[in-house]
Amino acid sequence: MQKYVYMFEEGNATMRELLGGKGANLAEMINLGLPVPDGFTVTTEACTKYYEDGEVVSPEVEDQVKAAMKKLEENTGKEFGNPDNSLLVSVRSGSRASMPGMMDTVLNLGLNDEVVDGLAKASNNRRFALDSYRRFIMMFGDVVMEIDKSNFDNIFDSKKEQKGIELDTDLTAEDLAEIVSDYKEIYKELTGSDFPTEPIEQLLLSIRAVFRSWNNPRAIYYRRMNNIPASWGTAVNIQEMVYGNIDDSCGTGVAFTRNPADGKNELYGEYLMNAQGEDVVAGVRTPSPISQLEEQNIDLYNQFKEIGDKLEKHYGDMQDLEFTIERGKLFILQTRNGKRTAQAALKIAVEMVEEGIVDKKQALLTIDPNQLNTLLHPQFDEEALEAATPIAKGLPASPGAATGEVVFTAQKATEEAETGKAVILVRDETSAEDIEGMHASAGILTVRGGMTSHAAVVARGMGTCCVAGCSDVSIDEEACTMEIAGVTYKEGEKISIDGSTGNVYAGEIPTVEAELSEYMQTVMEWVDEIRVLKVRTNADSAEDSTIALRLGAEGIGLTRTEHMFFAADRILAFRQMIVADNEEERRKALAEILPVQQSDFEAIFEVMKGKPVTIRLLDPPLHEFLPTAEADIQELADALDMDIDRLKAKINSLQEINPMLGHRGCRLAISYPEIAEMQTAAIIGAALAKSDADNKIVPEIMVPLVGDVKEFEFLHEVISNVADKLIAESGKDLEYHIGTMIEIPRAALTSEKIAKVADFFSYGTNDLTQMSYGLSRDDAGKILDVYIENGIYENDPTANLDLEGVGRLMKISAEEGRLGKPDISLGICGEHGGDPSAVEYCHELGFDYVSCSPYRVPIAKLAAAQAQINNPR
Amino acid sequence: MQKYVYMFEEGNATMRELLGGKGANLAEMINLGLPVPDGFTVTTEACTKYYEDGEVVSPEVEDQVKAAMKKLEENTGKEFGNPDNSLLVSVRSGSRASMPGMMDTVLNLGLNDEVVDGLAKASNNRRFALDSYRRFIMMFGDVVMEIDKSNFDNIFDSKKEQKGIELDTDLTAEDLAEIVSDYKEIYKELTGSDFPTEPIEQLLLSIRAVFRSWNNPRAIYYRRMNNIPASWGTAVNIQEMVYGNIDDSCGTGVAFTRNPADGKNELYGEYLMNAQGEDVVAGVRTPSPISQLEEQNIDLYNQFKEIGDKLEKHYGDMQDLEFTIERGKLFILQTRNGKRTAQAALKIAVEMVEEGIVDKKQALLTIDPNQLNTLLHPQFDEEALEAATPIAKGLPASPGAATGEVVFTAQKATEEAETGKAVILVRDETSAEDIEGMHASAGILTVRGGMTSHAAVVARGMGTCCVAGCSDVSIDEEACTMEIAGVTYKEGEKISIDGSTGNVYAGEIPTVEAELSEYMQTVMEWVDEIRVLKVRTNADSAEDSTIALRLGAEGIGLTRTEHMFFAADRILAFRQMIVADNEEERRKALAEILPVQQSDFEAIFEVMKGKPVTIRLLDPPLHEFLPTAEADIQELADALDMDIDRLKAKINSLQEINPMLGHRGCRLAISYPEIAEMQTAAIIGAALAKSDADNKIVPEIMVPLVGDVKEFEFLHEVISNVADKLIAESGKDLEYHIGTMIEIPRAALTSEKIAKVADFFSYGTNDLTQMSYGLSRDDAGKILDVYIENGIYENDPTANLDLEGVGRLMKISAEEGRLGKPDISLGICGEHGGDPSAVEYCHELGFDYVSCSPYRVPIAKLAAAQAQINNPR
Repeated sequence: MQKYVYMFEEGNATMRELLGGKGANLAEMINLGLPVPDGFTVTTEACTKYYEDGEVVSPEVEDQVKAAMKKLEENTGKEFGNPDNSLLVSVRSGSRASMPGMMDTVLNLGLNDEVVDGLAKASNNRRFALDSYRRFIMMFGDVVMEIDKSNFDNIFDSKKEQKGIELDTDLTAEDLAEIVSDYKEIYKELTGSDFPTEPIEQLLLSIRAVFRSWNNPRAIYYRRMNNIPASWGTAVNIQEMVYGNIDDSCGTGVAFTRNPADGKNELYGEYLMNAQGEDVVAGVRTPSPISQLEEQNIDLYNQFKEIGDKLEKHYGDMQDLEFTIERGKLFILQTRNGKRTAQAALKIAVEMVEEGIVDKKQALLTIDPNQLNTLLHPQFDEEALEAATPIAKGLPASPGAATGEVVFTAQKATEEAETGKAVILVRDETSAEDIEGMHASAGILTVRGGMTSHAAVVARGMGTCCVAGCSDVSIDEEACTMEIAGVTYKEGEKISIDGSTGNVYAGEIPTVEAELSEYMQTVMEWVDEIRVLKVRTNADSAEDSTIALRLGAEGIGLTRTEHMFFAADRILAFRQMIVADNEEERRKALAEILPVQQSDFEAIFEVMKGKPVTIRLLDPPLHEFLPTAEADIQELADALDMDIDRLKAKINSLQEINPMLGHRGCRLAISYPEIAEMQTAAIIGAALAKSDADNKIVPEIMVPLVGDVKEFEFLHEVISNVADKLIAESGKDLEYHIGTMIEIPRAALTSEKIAKVADFFSYGTNDLTQMSYGLSRDDAGKILDVYIENGIYENDPTANLDLEGVGRLMKISAEEGRLGKPDISLGICGEHGGDPSAVEYCHELGFDYVSCSPYRVPIAKLAAAQAQINNPR
Repeated sequence: MQKYVYMFEEGNATMRELLGGKGANLAEMINLGLPVPDGFTVTTEACTKYYEDGEVVSPEVEDQVKAAMKKLEENTGKEFGNPDNSLLVSVRSGSRASMPGMMDTVLNLGLNDEVVDGLAKASNNRRFALDSYRRFIMMFGDVVMEIDKSNFDNIFDSKKEQKGIELDTDLTAEDLAEIVSDYKEIYKELTGSDFPTEPIEQLLLSIRAVFRSWNNPRAIYYRRMNNIPASWGTAVNIQEMVYGNIDDSCGTGVAFTRNPADGKNELYGEYLMNAQGEDVVAGVRTPSPISQLEEQNIDLYNQFKEIGDKLEKHYGDMQDLEFTIERGKLFILQTRNGKRTAQAALKIAVEMVEEGIVDKKQALLTIDPNQLNTLLHPQFDEEALEAATPIAKGLPASPGAATGEVVFTAQKATEEAETGKAVILVRDETSAEDIEGMHASAGILTVRGGMTSHAAVVARGMGTCCVAGCSDVSIDEEACTMEIAGVTYKEGEKISIDGSTGNVYAGEIPTVEAELSEYMQTVMEWVDEIRVLKVRTNADSAEDSTIALRLGAEGIGLTRTEHMFFAADRILAFRQMIVADNEEERRKALAEILPVQQSDFEAIFEVMKGKPVTIRLLDPPLHEFLPTAEADIQELADALDMDIDRLKAKINSLQEINPMLGHRGCRLAISYPEIAEMQTAAIIGAALAKSDADNKIVPEIMVPLVGDVKEFEFLHEVISNVADKLIAESGKDLEYHIGTMIEIPRAALTSEKIAKVADFFSYGTNDLTQMSYGLSRDDAGKILDVYIENGIYENDPTANLDLEGVGRLMKISAEEGRLGKPDISLGICGEHGGDPSAVEYCHELGFDYVSCSPYRVPIAKLAAAQAQINNPR
């Protein structure tokens, strides 16, 4: 028979998946000989089974729980439900990953009218017994029976009011007895039955409630935010009660072994005497800082410090402890690796190595790569921020903070930015046309669109702060105003937005630049020593490249050439090219673009000083470059000296039903090889101009959207013809590579053939994901909401690489690509390139590099180092 | 060294891939001891090498050609270029698959001014020698040097005009000498060099030209139409000339061993005395039917008949022969399996079995499944036909009936057809350039040309109705009119043609379904005995189902429920459902639809009498059901009593950027489970109403667009809850199945999981292809044109299943699906279900069934039988 219940003595810290984090650590501490009340854990598998069985706790699990209770009675010498020698327990959830505040707890379980009398006698403290009882009824009613907590709070508060007292501790035993009586009454009124008096019934109902709470909306939301699979389930810990609420020789508290805000090596926490459970954080009485315990009870303090040090050494990480003092005796109720700020994480990691507690590899594993994000972007000045109140909240789409004047069009953003003003671009949603304006803006705020909307993706790529999907905002484009909560903001008024929280503020809040701390630098040195996966960046300009280099990029994995075409000095020529009627006209327009495009590449090559640079040929459908508003079309017609009806007909003829699956990528270059020829000439020309003995440039030309080897072969010939001719004419030596994006499922499935003729593959996981799922990122918003709500998707696959489907295509492609060309270079350049779990996967597949937006370079590097530590290659 | 050249004696019929069809058969006939002029074949590999080497005939190939010429000189006792004993040769292409009219031929090669004199002396016929010479110069100039043929025709025609003669044969030796002289002049003028006098140079240039012609636009188009890979290449056959143009004891002709139009067992063909090469089909002189040879020369006729019988037995199929009579001696220049109409194919297959020439399996392999199409399509309504009087009569060149608007150019045919019009293409005669327009036409009418003219042969191959040689018609191309018996018909006027009788009618004649012939029934009986793959149909109504049943469907593989919603009695309720603001309103509208939807299903179940019926839940995005024109929106707003601005806003909110990758398929049902509930209720309700002991109905409910097992699980629960409840309430027994389309790449890649919970998979290869390629069928038009033109795609993957990519996904899915559930039912319901090569592939993958449009059921069945014959399972 499957074992669903483990006594603490049977477990250890490695059994996290089965026992949950809390249960595994309680077991570990018991085995370390620490003062931990005894108990047992109902496994996560029992939770999974509960859902598989249709939300029923099976008789098997019930039987094992009962047997474990018997064992606990033996171990403690107490008896569940026996008034003369009562065993009370706590019931607490504990999932594999820490989910603070998400799950529910029941304390003092086992009490009923008889037991409470016994407890009063045994403790010689009726008040304590009744205090425990009222807490139990309230928690049981709230958590197990889902009675709105305010029902209990109202009774409790009116009793305090009636008695004219402020502190819970001032309530007498009699008061508490009345409260208990009222609690039982409201319980019966709202549930239709008496409060259950049978301890084992209380226990089983509580276990079921913990299982059920795994799927409460808060838990689902937390999992969604933190990419925790619903399938993991939660364990339940049943533990003998110890009491912080008997009298003033008792107390309860929480503490970190180091300061979680700044990382300083000091005990950091709070405690409250004569208190239980949530009293510490409830805010009714002000808890004391843990340092005060040193004055109050030096022995206890030292004992606690010693245990903290021991656990920190044992786990190799800063610990977050819960403790209870019962009549002067210390009990540890929980230990776990402590959450900390990014700054603290870096300092703690570096100092723990200096202190000899861990080695570099262990230290690196204590840092969450995603967390570094906050350290790499400008932030609001903290004092100023505290004084500010948000006027609206959207999605934290691209981190950082920005303050500036509101504008409502991309064009206005560009104009104002040119005068040196900081602007916040506010749009319903953005499109490719807005790119230049987005680039010119200090921050972007959109009304619609999710975390992977155009605005969010582009902003993250640019490192520009962005709040997306802020539906509190309503724009009146004609009036050039927006309204938030009834207040109108005009163009030019100042607002501030925080892309790390999604908050929007009225007025200006000063920002401070992020500095790379010495700890960050030390950590990055270790990272660079350890990792084998290279980290490049996606950068479309010399500016982006400079930022990325500063952040440690080892090359460029993706330069998108299309953004360049939107600049004012070339968009007209580019549009002329698009509306041209024949090859000759197209070539004429392209000839105008060639020198400016080449100068862009020269600037990038100059910054990158011989590091690898991959440049992708034009990718988006041509209609994205054409105006859509009537006035803009008229303006273009005038500029091109073209009949407006002819221009409209042309624009119309370029419309597509599914542009994502239409005339774009290499399909453009196959239709109009002259575009690829111009781009090749610009790339090779720039490389020839900037390559020298010190900085040998080996440009990598990347063909997008290949689905069949013949598409690649066709363009390989077009590209190499132009390149070879230019190189021959220059009389110089220049090596160059031609490779392809793997972003179409069929390309992944035919990689062996393609690899035979390609120098490199770069996985474009954005499109590969969309096509593998048959789901357009632009249209996925409302679908994803419903899916995640219903537990169908664990998370947004356009943000987190789907290893099962998309990852499998990458694996097939990488393995078979190497059959075609054993030394083919493999990289990833989709948004997922900066996603730590994708970085880990690319490491496992033996990729050469990942490429991500500049600000994610340190994150990807740390993830790459962690991947190498966990799975050396 | 690789062997690129084979003497005919070295080859045989099995070497088709290497020697091409023509070369392999010439070799086979030589080895059978038939009277075939000797020669050799340059292999298809030499052609492939030519393209690999950058369109250059390699020295290796040249050397082997020269060696073979030496051998041919030895064998014939003649000498290439020796005026006193000249060896002349023909150079003809011959690819693996028959490509009539696509490739080019040069006859009489080896002639120059000296050799022509020698030939005149040796034949004692200067006129013949010069006639051969002018033909040679013209063909060489046209085919090898790409001189526009009209340059030669003008010279030739003006000479005839000048001499006041009509027939080529009336030209004297002197006339021909002048023509030759003029030909050489225009040749020099247009090519800049003299006509080459060196025979070996003539030969090598001609071989190169044949290779080159493999990639001419007509050949590319033909390959595209017939799915012949560009990689196959063509062989070149060099054969000793025999002459049908010396005098009236000579001649040339073509004949089939059975009648290719109706299958009758009789020699069928045409010949022309004193003629060479294309004279028979050129239409200048009218050839004689082959039956006349019996009167003219009984011995020759009997010899020919005997050879025909021998070849038919040898190849086990009806043969198409080319022959030449040189001074009373018969030579066979080519044999191949003859093209035939579908009717003929069936009759021939059945009779060859009856005659003991082949067994059933061999006979089935002689029928092209695609060709059956013609038999399954409508004929004229007999009553209407009786009332109609033909306005003209031509040859019944390709059976079937067509009615449509007259057009006079292939281009116009293509254009009009694209707008959805049925057109009849009327031409003096057709040529290879017209192929695309012919394909677009409902019928073809030609003024000139016989039963074996270009138009006739091509139309039969396409299964397009054709009346040829209708000399009553006189076309005025400039005026875009034609005149028949004094009446003028303008472009766009409707006519009707009957390809089985040759009759042409003014105006439109209604058409009726075809009757299945006894031969068809016999063949289908054999097919049903042999095949193991079941064939179902895609049918959305009782009417479709009835047609499909008549054509042999064994069930329904796909009923699309969306078409039903467009019917007038429900579209309003459906639109009300779409624009509803909440679930309650949606349910109200759905309740109105339920009874009508259920009655649709009842009608289908009634027709299908217990055969399996798979019904797919609503698939398309909801906006497809809403109006787009302003007036229609206003009408809907009125009908729904809804504010028009609110309606517009709703319509607008449903717009998607990439609807194909948007909110559709199971995503709709997950967002609005009430839709799936209504549809399930309609299906189960209908099955309960119509199922009885005789016709036990087991409805199959199909969930579209699943990409993750959890989507399916979610809907499985929604569906089975409704179904189980209804069945329980009915008190009846009803089995039902729930399965899914596999049409998203990720579903194929995660099939093991999905199979565990699905009863069946049906491959939706339309969407699977579009997503695997990242190519929307709606937007692919211009991309495919460019791709096929450039040889990047061999054919349109949305029409022909791509085995390499899409097929691989199906294979992965089928194999892994069976791991999840060994007995899972597998089928295909995409457009490809009626594509014989896809049927073959599904047979190989061990599928249970294919499902296709009703008219393609017999085609799929035959393809399934052929697959079983070729690859028994």
